Amino acid sequence: MLMGRIVGTVVSTQKDSGLTGFKLLVVQCVDVDMKLTPSYVIAVDAIGCGMNEMAIVVQGSSARITDRTKNKPVDAAIIAVVDNVDVQGKRVYEKFKSS
Amino acid sequence: MLMGRIVGTVVSTQKDSGLTGFKLLVVQCVDVDMKLTPSYVIAVDAIGCGMNEMAIVVQGSSARITDRTKNKPVDAAIIAVVDNVDVQGKRVYEKFKSS
Amino acid sequence: MLMGRIVGTVVSTQKDSGLTGFKLLVVQCVDVDMKLTPSYVIAVDAIGCGMNEMAIVVQGSSARITDRTKNKPVDAAIIAVVDNVDVQGKRVYEKFKSS
Amino acid sequence: MLMGRIVGTVVSTQKDSGLTGFKLLVVQCVDVDMKLTPSYVIAVDAIGCGMNEMAIVVQGSSARITDRTKNKPVDAAIIAVVDNVDVQGKRVYEKFKSS
Amino acid sequence: MLMGRIVGTVVSTQKDSGLTGFKLLVVQCVDVDMKLTPSYVIAVDAIGCGMNEMAIVVQGSSARITDRTKNKPVDAAIIAVVDNVDVQGKRVYEKFKSS
Repeated sequence: MLMGRIVGTVVSTQKDSGLTGFKLLVVQCVDVDMKLTPSYVIAVDAIGCGMNEMAIVVQGSSARITDRTKNKPVDAAIIAVVDNVDVQGKRVYEKFKSS
Repeated sequence: MLMGRIVGTVVSTQKDSGLTGFKLLVVQCVDVDMKLTPSYVIAVDAIGCGMNEMAIVVQGSSARITDRTKNKPVDAAIIAVVDNVDVQGKRVYEKFKSS
Repeated sequence: MLMGRIVGTVVSTQKDSGLTGFKLLVVQCVDVDMKLTPSYVIAVDAIGCGMNEMAIVVQGSSARITDRTKNKPVDAAIIAVVDNVDVQGKRVYEKFKSS
Repeated sequence: MLMGRIVGTVVSTQKDSGLTGFKLLVVQCVDVDMKLTPSYVIAVDAIGCGMNEMAIVVQGSSARITDRTKNKPVDAAIIAVVDNVDVQGKRVYEKFKSS
Repeated sequence: MLMGRIVGTVVSTQKDSGLTGFKLLVVQCVDVDMKLTPSYVIAVDAIGCGMNEMAIVVQGSSARITDRTKNKPVDAAIIAVVDNVDVQGKRVYEKFKSS
């Protein structure tokens, strides 16, 4: 899975029927030091998450295996909101300290 | 999913029978500031879209899950035309202002 | 799908039985201006194509959905030979003018 | 598959039910000389492994084929802990010498 | 598929049961001129191949379609050993001349 911050939203009215009811979110990837990178994906929200949260995104056919996305035409779904990340013994991200 | 602008068309007469009736479009990816990047994909049109529109493209096996592409030999399908994109609280794309 | 020029061939005698009878072709990717890039894939020929033709390659599980490649152990198949490509209103590729 | 060192952990309480009970680990990829690269993936632990171990990660739909991850919404799973790696006739990694 | 040279081996005792009996090989990718690049994959041997051979690797779900890897948790399998490669009319690789 990839990790990134939810930084935006996409609105579409003309779309495949399988996307009806899904929020399309812009998730900007972070590097291993939790800095934003230029990469991003458009992911559907499979769990109910909010702007600026750090998210885990599952890609490929596994994006169709979540409770909300079964058999939907999506290749990226947010499946977790991150509370904490520890790398090399250091706390590099903590949800309730970030703004 | 990825986001990009529909910038071109591909015409082919010699092709697998599964591609019959599909428009093959050149979708040039945009970065998170909506600037065109050098990357592109050739995607089939699964919803009926037009030149210069901003599109959402689903890739991989999920490209075969749309209403029009079931069981077709495609790995990229346009599943939505973008109306608006907001990133970091700013409107970075608006369909009806772009030319 | 990706687009590239068929620039070479691979010959193999020691291989999985599922590859028997397939031509393995070297397809060198082109950028959106139709210039060759350093990237390439080895793809099977699913339609009967020739050296130097511009090809559309489908990747992933969809490479096993063509008429000739059903259930074969391949992740890249040529599914179309390109006649013309138009980008931003300009004809950037035309089969019968290229040598 | 890719190879990388297990360098961190991700904690999440708000997540898809299919992730319940899985450890989410940060696996930082190594190059062919076993040096850490900037790339990483978030992978579930499918075998029971520990911090700083060198791991083999399977991606895509195959991440759902392990004993522990069948039908789970994951696209990356650690399926092996590396004991030794030999490249070009040299031992480039040995588990029981690394700290 | 990708093409690369078999340059190394990975040994693992702690692993998913689905990997039992498979050789894990380090395949270093080559560019279109057959020079080694920094990229590599860890692939299982699906045909019986040897060190330094030039190999074709199938990735993704298709890596589970070979005779030996059906339903195994692998995303990369060597499915062919290369005899010759011709690019732009030149022989760029020949197995029985390489050392």
